[in-house]
Amino acid sequence: MVTAPTDKLVDCPALAALSVISGKWTTRILWVLREGSCDFGALRRALGGVSAKVLTDHLKALEAEGVILRRERSEAGVVHVSYAYSDYGRTLIPALDALGQWGLTHAARDRG
Amino acid sequence: MVTAPTDKLVDCPALAALSVISGKWTTRILWVLREGSCDFGALRRALGGVSAKVLTDHLKALEAEGVILRRERSEAGVVHVSYAYSDYGRTLIPALDALGQWGLTHAARDRG
Repeated sequence: MVTAPTDKLVDCPALAALSVISGKWTTRILWVLREGSCDFGALRRALGGVSAKVLTDHLKALEAEGVILRRERSEAGVVHVSYAYSDYGRTLIPALDALGQWGLTHAARDRG
Repeated sequence: MVTAPTDKLVDCPALAALSVISGKWTTRILWVLREGSCDFGALRRALGGVSAKVLTDHLKALEAEGVILRRERSEAGVVHVSYAYSDYGRTLIPALDALGQWGLTHAARDRG
């Protein structure tokens, strides 16, 4: 059965989500933070090869979208900055997990 | 609790999926085909504004990934070409639907 979608589909909701989560570093940041709050240094090491400036810019963008929170904690006069999903950001995790699941299958299929 | 992910995360499975589904036209093609098989003309009208060449190239790329199938059907001497998800491609739909769901919420939140 060949169906011709009736209305001209300009706004594709999946694209709206992809505009927030896609990107070489953005997706990786979101992937790492699924494991829990993470300080800047640990995040940078986990991503391997990202500059501090690029990481800061990407974190600011995700913060502006309301997807992650930046927290500061003082300890013995030293300020520690960590990042975590906001409650709203956590609603992204099912989609990220579904993508991750498919990505693993796809990568295995490519090596198949 | 601040956790430092132990291993250096280079291969992010979600990125592997995004490399297949992301893109201004790619995501829209996959979104339209969720509704069923679609012939080239109807697909081009649904996407609005894509050139035949660009659409052809994107469809070939998705075909090469094994995500969609190209079918030919002859009718009164005229060959009709249509596209549809492969069985393997259909395994993407849950991730696309989860992205679409989040995208709708995010778009509404932006307009909020």
